[in-house]
Amino acid sequence: MLPSIETLHFSLKMEVRDYELDRFGVINNAVYQNYLEHTRHKFLEANGVKMVDLLERGFSPVITKAEIEYRSSLQSKDDFVVNLELASLSKVKFVFMQEIRRLPEDKLIINARITGTILNSSGRPCFPEAFQDLRSVLTHKNTDK
Amino acid sequence: MLPSIETLHFSLKMEVRDYELDRFGVINNAVYQNYLEHTRHKFLEANGVKMVDLLERGFSPVITKAEIEYRSSLQSKDDFVVNLELASLSKVKFVFMQEIRRLPEDKLIINARITGTILNSSGRPCFPEAFQDLRSVLTHKNTDK
Amino acid sequence: MLPSIETLHFSLKMEVRDYELDRFGVINNAVYQNYLEHTRHKFLEANGVKMVDLLERGFSPVITKAEIEYRSSLQSKDDFVVNLELASLSKVKFVFMQEIRRLPEDKLIINARITGTILNSSGRPCFPEAFQDLRSVLTHKNTDK
Amino acid sequence: MLPSIETLHFSLKMEVRDYELDRFGVINNAVYQNYLEHTRHKFLEANGVKMVDLLERGFSPVITKAEIEYRSSLQSKDDFVVNLELASLSKVKFVFMQEIRRLPEDKLIINARITGTILNSSGRPCFPEAFQDLRSVLTHKNTDK
Repeated sequence: MLPSIETLHFSLKMEVRDYELDRFGVINNAVYQNYLEHTRHKFLEANGVKMVDLLERGFSPVITKAEIEYRSSLQSKDDFVVNLELASLSKVKFVFMQEIRRLPEDKLIINARITGTILNSSGRPCFPEAFQDLRSVLTHKNTDK
Repeated sequence: MLPSIETLHFSLKMEVRDYELDRFGVINNAVYQNYLEHTRHKFLEANGVKMVDLLERGFSPVITKAEIEYRSSLQSKDDFVVNLELASLSKVKFVFMQEIRRLPEDKLIINARITGTILNSSGRPCFPEAFQDLRSVLTHKNTDK
Repeated sequence: MLPSIETLHFSLKMEVRDYELDRFGVINNAVYQNYLEHTRHKFLEANGVKMVDLLERGFSPVITKAEIEYRSSLQSKDDFVVNLELASLSKVKFVFMQEIRRLPEDKLIINARITGTILNSSGRPCFPEAFQDLRSVLTHKNTDK
Repeated sequence: MLPSIETLHFSLKMEVRDYELDRFGVINNAVYQNYLEHTRHKFLEANGVKMVDLLERGFSPVITKAEIEYRSSLQSKDDFVVNLELASLSKVKFVFMQEIRRLPEDKLIINARITGTILNSSGRPCFPEAFQDLRSVLTHKNTDK
């Protein structure tokens, strides 16, 4: 059976918490990065990559580049969804496309392109096996197109 | 007297605080955005733009795009400097080039290009006078070259 | 119909996010205060007290005292519940008893007693009507005992 | 030579950063705990207790109780000082008295009593030698009185 395309998309619903608001009553730019990171970790976990395991084995996931466009703002009580797509995955680099949309109207709040790698205990880019598995899935998906 | 080029550069020395470290013992990506923002506000304040005034008059500074390259990491006890240059300033858009360097060796940690605007109380891009003054300074500087 | 005792108790399930962990791999003390605040706001909102309304009318809820006992720690991926009881409510003072328990075993992580008030636009303690309503409910409950 | 009483007092000057403000334009309660923790770490470091060393040797400092009274609020641009006194130090428990005062008028913002311990790699309360040294200083001080 071919892997489902769905495995490389992921969505997480969240809700604004008042302590995340800044003095202008909107979510601060830095907090959006927290939302994006939390969603990436939930995606990885759902696909068999456990952060605790990486940590114990000396691996450190690092972001090397973040490109974020802020289109609108989240405010108090807003519900929103963080969408994620694993866009590419080479031997030493991953790229996530992510966006945050306010619910229920699906209004685009930010979109982001997040590039990163995983360093081993020597500080060298090196993907553990769990990541390799994601790669094979991605390859199948692109071949299907 | 011509305005000094220095007014459009700005540097702020800071120090890592342990509560800013994540479980990997390094500064989390989102925290760097806090450092960058704090430095922009200090720069603006030093040039006569007071955030409290903007807020009271209904202006909201917003970032529309952040492009950040993460080159290395800050760790516990690290001293660092955040350098800032106001790279361009049109009638409704500003661009800051910023970088964070670890001291004393001046090692590059991140560099960033931050684009933004200021919205008036109607939600329209509109720069208050204090920002216009920055623009004239920038124009002189570029003419000098 | 007498108001239900349940209206003065409230529980909110949440989940640890990795960006909330500190370098020791546990939730930092300050983050627990965020969890407690978010739960109080959700409780108030569920009982007709809207923070946005308070803000617009010049009211500022403030905590005057926090007593927190830390019994154990939350770690990565932990699910937990924040329980809240509105313990007392005079004309100008509220007291919340709160606890955080890790799920599914209901292990006590912290318990807290949070005292506060609401200031009006002149900076004086003054409870808006929505809070007065909570008080009548609490009075009924205590009379029932 | 008798150890100086001064070694058990410590003060750290800091400044409010705009990203620490909440929607009411004041410092959020949780952020004050960050200020208190940062000051404790700087005090310990100044007295020979290095957090990095503790971590590497499997020690985890933990707060067991925080009692905080909030008297007033810090706002944008405020300078402040965090004062600290190591009030007591038994074989397995430390107590810090801390206060935050706004400068230059020295207005009391919060005072706090922070109780804690240090756990060894087995999760048992156990103070490393660097902490024992602090204890001897404290004993001398109290004998002097």
